[in-house]
Amino acid sequence: MAYSVGVVGAAGYAGAELVRLLLAHPDFELKVVTSQADAGTPLAAVYPAFAGETNLVFTAHDDPALMALDAVFLAVPHTAALGMVPAFMAHGVSVFDLSADYRLQDPEVYEAWYAAKHTSRDLLATRAFGLPELFAQDLDAAAASLTAGAPALVACAGCYPTATSLAAAPALRMGWCRAASLLVVDAVSGVTGAGKGCNARTHFCSADENVAAYGVCSHRHTPEIEQILDARDRVVFTPHLAPLKRGLLSTVTLQLTDDARAMSTEEAVRAYEAFYQQAPLVHVLPAGTMPNTSSVVGTCSCHVGLAIDRRVGALIVTAAIDNLGKGAAGQAVQCANIVFGMDERRGLPRVGMPV
Amino acid sequence: MAYSVGVVGAAGYAGAELVRLLLAHPDFELKVVTSQADAGTPLAAVYPAFAGETNLVFTAHDDPALMALDAVFLAVPHTAALGMVPAFMAHGVSVFDLSADYRLQDPEVYEAWYAAKHTSRDLLATRAFGLPELFAQDLDAAAASLTAGAPALVACAGCYPTATSLAAAPALRMGWCRAASLLVVDAVSGVTGAGKGCNARTHFCSADENVAAYGVCSHRHTPEIEQILDARDRVVFTPHLAPLKRGLLSTVTLQLTDDARAMSTEEAVRAYEAFYQQAPLVHVLPAGTMPNTSSVVGTCSCHVGLAIDRRVGALIVTAAIDNLGKGAAGQAVQCANIVFGMDERRGLPRVGMPV
Amino acid sequence: MAYSVGVVGAAGYAGAELVRLLLAHPDFELKVVTSQADAGTPLAAVYPAFAGETNLVFTAHDDPALMALDAVFLAVPHTAALGMVPAFMAHGVSVFDLSADYRLQDPEVYEAWYAAKHTSRDLLATRAFGLPELFAQDLDAAAASLTAGAPALVACAGCYPTATSLAAAPALRMGWCRAASLLVVDAVSGVTGAGKGCNARTHFCSADENVAAYGVCSHRHTPEIEQILDARDRVVFTPHLAPLKRGLLSTVTLQLTDDARAMSTEEAVRAYEAFYQQAPLVHVLPAGTMPNTSSVVGTCSCHVGLAIDRRVGALIVTAAIDNLGKGAAGQAVQCANIVFGMDERRGLPRVGMPV
Amino acid sequence: MAYSVGVVGAAGYAGAELVRLLLAHPDFELKVVTSQADAGTPLAAVYPAFAGETNLVFTAHDDPALMALDAVFLAVPHTAALGMVPAFMAHGVSVFDLSADYRLQDPEVYEAWYAAKHTSRDLLATRAFGLPELFAQDLDAAAASLTAGAPALVACAGCYPTATSLAAAPALRMGWCRAASLLVVDAVSGVTGAGKGCNARTHFCSADENVAAYGVCSHRHTPEIEQILDARDRVVFTPHLAPLKRGLLSTVTLQLTDDARAMSTEEAVRAYEAFYQQAPLVHVLPAGTMPNTSSVVGTCSCHVGLAIDRRVGALIVTAAIDNLGKGAAGQAVQCANIVFGMDERRGLPRVGMPV
Repeated sequence: MAYSVGVVGAAGYAGAELVRLLLAHPDFELKVVTSQADAGTPLAAVYPAFAGETNLVFTAHDDPALMALDAVFLAVPHTAALGMVPAFMAHGVSVFDLSADYRLQDPEVYEAWYAAKHTSRDLLATRAFGLPELFAQDLDAAAASLTAGAPALVACAGCYPTATSLAAAPALRMGWCRAASLLVVDAVSGVTGAGKGCNARTHFCSADENVAAYGVCSHRHTPEIEQILDARDRVVFTPHLAPLKRGLLSTVTLQLTDDARAMSTEEAVRAYEAFYQQAPLVHVLPAGTMPNTSSVVGTCSCHVGLAIDRRVGALIVTAAIDNLGKGAAGQAVQCANIVFGMDERRGLPRVGMPV
Repeated sequence: MAYSVGVVGAAGYAGAELVRLLLAHPDFELKVVTSQADAGTPLAAVYPAFAGETNLVFTAHDDPALMALDAVFLAVPHTAALGMVPAFMAHGVSVFDLSADYRLQDPEVYEAWYAAKHTSRDLLATRAFGLPELFAQDLDAAAASLTAGAPALVACAGCYPTATSLAAAPALRMGWCRAASLLVVDAVSGVTGAGKGCNARTHFCSADENVAAYGVCSHRHTPEIEQILDARDRVVFTPHLAPLKRGLLSTVTLQLTDDARAMSTEEAVRAYEAFYQQAPLVHVLPAGTMPNTSSVVGTCSCHVGLAIDRRVGALIVTAAIDNLGKGAAGQAVQCANIVFGMDERRGLPRVGMPV
Repeated sequence: MAYSVGVVGAAGYAGAELVRLLLAHPDFELKVVTSQADAGTPLAAVYPAFAGETNLVFTAHDDPALMALDAVFLAVPHTAALGMVPAFMAHGVSVFDLSADYRLQDPEVYEAWYAAKHTSRDLLATRAFGLPELFAQDLDAAAASLTAGAPALVACAGCYPTATSLAAAPALRMGWCRAASLLVVDAVSGVTGAGKGCNARTHFCSADENVAAYGVCSHRHTPEIEQILDARDRVVFTPHLAPLKRGLLSTVTLQLTDDARAMSTEEAVRAYEAFYQQAPLVHVLPAGTMPNTSSVVGTCSCHVGLAIDRRVGALIVTAAIDNLGKGAAGQAVQCANIVFGMDERRGLPRVGMPV
Repeated sequence: MAYSVGVVGAAGYAGAELVRLLLAHPDFELKVVTSQADAGTPLAAVYPAFAGETNLVFTAHDDPALMALDAVFLAVPHTAALGMVPAFMAHGVSVFDLSADYRLQDPEVYEAWYAAKHTSRDLLATRAFGLPELFAQDLDAAAASLTAGAPALVACAGCYPTATSLAAAPALRMGWCRAASLLVVDAVSGVTGAGKGCNARTHFCSADENVAAYGVCSHRHTPEIEQILDARDRVVFTPHLAPLKRGLLSTVTLQLTDDARAMSTEEAVRAYEAFYQQAPLVHVLPAGTMPNTSSVVGTCSCHVGLAIDRRVGALIVTAAIDNLGKGAAGQAVQCANIVFGMDERRGLPRVGMPV
């Protein structure tokens, strides 16, 4: 059974990755790819990886064919989604939104961090949050309401929040962390995370052989992490850029209660494994092993590694994802799989290149 | 219908890529992976990209289970294959050999370039050469004989010979080149081409931010290129190492006859397209476009671009492949697809990551 | 006035960088370079960057010429220095030791973290600690005693401790941090930090396009950081490897007292500037700017950037150095400059390549 | 003795490298740095590598202070130099021009390849060509005329022509090549060669992990190479982009006369060494060794390696330079050293980072 789908904003990096995943998906049929800047241009002229393998041509965002689809994936900048989602929903088209517009439950928080008015509060109140391992019930509800005839609206989690939360949520939900303690998140992203726009920071000669922090104390993923982890005003999030195309590593340091501090790393690993027993895309690595970003590039998998530092009373957890995979396009397809009643892994690459 | 297969030498880079491709292949069932050094170790402990997705464990090369398989892929060093192939053939196990041992038709040439005795001349005389786009008849014959009950032996072409020949063969076969003229081949490979062995050249700090020629006038792929192109003592082949993990670009400069020199680049592109009309994994790019290695990483595709320089009377052709894909593991699977009667693209990734 | 010097362990990465710096230094004359593995080989055969510019040939570590020098720089593994330093001191040869053997004041701590006996406790008690910006008095004392005729022994700080301490020490010394709070240090190093030994982690194909944590809770620089910062059992240090040749970024997150939390970032920057007013190799960047590792590659400079997060009450400081420059060879030469009575910048590169 | 100098176009990559070299030069005093886009901005705000080490601020190109200098270095796009040089010369300011405007002796060739009118033919006829190892007499004449009171105009050779000519010129001048034979030049450049402009090709995510040919049959350095080598309509020049910041390797394949073909590689190396005996910045590597681009990054050195392929009758020569060093800024300073009567190496880095 094939569902017809489209990608709005398909010329950006997340959009192009959506195209790659959807072209290979056995149950989604990709019919429309839009780009304002590249409308009229064949996909393969912009991304030569598609040469000879698809005849899709970009159309503009107002392509009427979109409204006849079963679902659209929105890979547009924040605020742009706000302007599109209501019409799709009104036409019965399910929406998997990769932008930030429907992620934050509290529109005041959105308006404070994004410096923009939230014009779609009604839909916000009903959207599902797209991070299946931690918000399964949201997606189940969306699936049920789709079965009942109502289109789904899924706000897919951002890249840093996904990796950070998959690293930290088990410890927090299991009550390992000291009350009101700071959660220190230092994360590193590949340059695709900075988007396709070419600027002084994304020029090869700036990014190559360089590591630097950016957006210190001000990155917009901070409130999203705090929301997911239920840790208002407790997260110090410092993102860094490293010379990778794809890949994101979040290193989270948590302060342990005296009880939790007594655990061995092996015990902590077993508890994490149990936590993710039903999550086929999250792999907890054995004690003593920390994840490589390169292992998950091209996939929708997340690798998690952890260690207890009894000496100082801290838990260090690192989680690796492909920022365009589990951190964007892959997670959106995973959400769509669930909402349309399929195995969440359906059509998704899970094994990265070994080298 | 599933054929049972194994990978001998699965811990090397080409071997691990074979594992990745075969695990995802709908009609091959990967049952055995061998490694002398890593026997007893789970695959995922050596290559964490497989974490959580396979329970395969390396066994030794003499694993008796190999002899019960339909086919084996050999990813072992040259001369090692010579010692294994006769037994597999005697047991009716088809062999797809990624080593150099059965590539050169003339055992004297093998012995001169590889400084080793060729101990399997009978099988050499009957092997198929594994470069489907240029030696389709070889693989058809192997398929026919397999149907008739005889195991196949396919000597898969090397990485540099594959890209170089896909670039140069059309021009040579169409008679565009001046008689006895030199064929100048400057090629660039990613570091996986130098193998998993860690040495002064493959250390990150040597390879990163560096380009250098190596094996000048002495690389063992030279006679293989000359054999494929039927150009004895005419090829100057200069390989280079560049800071990429995967990807190989061969730039071939050919001296044109007066007739050929009159062509436009557009005419030459059309002739190449016609040449490769039946080759679904080779994509000839439009005039004015040259291939990127990054576009084919992870795939079994080859991108070809060309230009006629009328001013000096030369054809410049560049071909991009993934050295571990179309240049090794992918091509071996492509050959196996053909020999086992399937579409040659079966199970093979053809669209690379867009970015 | 030229002092005669030698490098013991000159074939390693820190050793080779020492050679580069000393060859260009106007007041040190490099006379001996030793390497056990490469004795008898010209320097330029191992490091082609020296081709045509020096005729130095490696000799063995027991080269008697060493004992006639004014000073030696030791770039040997830990425990090896323990075996060499007493003899040099006995011969009146000053020692600038880049190994860990004399860094930790408390030999019990050394023995616990390095799993080796400390056989030179007398000298340990008198060594100077080589981190001039924070331990100026140590080096002044060494200079005075050299003037008085006694050779100096300087234990140069390690790479991670240097960057981390230059980032954190001002805040701690100025009393900004909550008592007994954790100091969270996430640092990223280029691959030269892992040394010249070629292994699964330093192979180009492992390190490229990859970021991973390593040595979590167990890295030997942890007690050194705690010693410098006077913060026993308070440091969580998580090092990471990134695909750079050179460069090290340390990101330190500190929990502020209520008083300190009231500061603006601009005020904090001014306080740091004042702290480093006498430190010509440390540059505090303006508020809003965070350092790039690429800016300091090849130099002995350190760039520091900081931000106050009033919302959660934290200070985030990042410091960038070249792990082989200010983190190793450059710092050793800086120490030698001071001990021999010169400007600490003498002969040291301070401006990196702009791009 | 200090000469006052300025850099026009100092915000570009070659300009910034000129600044780095001139700030460290003992006999040039850098007084003016101009940039139209960045006028009014401190140098260190654009290139943080300069932080804390210079207070220079960009001024506009029409800064009157330029006309009072002893010399200016022009790092501006082609045609822009044509508009500036006559005024500098009229004011007695010597010019070291890094643009292409005065490189081609024949203005018709310039106009054909650059699609621009040559408006300064008189000065063109008198300029010196700035490639000291091959055109020493040009620079000697410029030095003599400067002594006599006339400002010098030096058209510095381009990056690809420099490396290619240093590789090929000895063989051609010594008569080793077959008459009228093609000279095949395949060269690889780092991304700084594509300039500071950020576009689809220089974005990190396009350039990283990628090698591709560009400008095939049409690169403007082609006629410059042919002019230097006196080989009109014989050069096939195919440049490639590789994921390096700096570094350029030119691989030249030449067809040998029967006499030359009889040489061993060792004999050819000795002949090259003799050819470059008076050239202190060119290092011919021993037979069997080919240059690494990484060895010359940051320097004004050129490493040359070669091999005779007797089997096919070809000479393969590779030359490595830093495209911003010997290929641009370094060569300009080398020329200025000569013209102002100093050792050509004065103030120039010659030893790269060993790793």
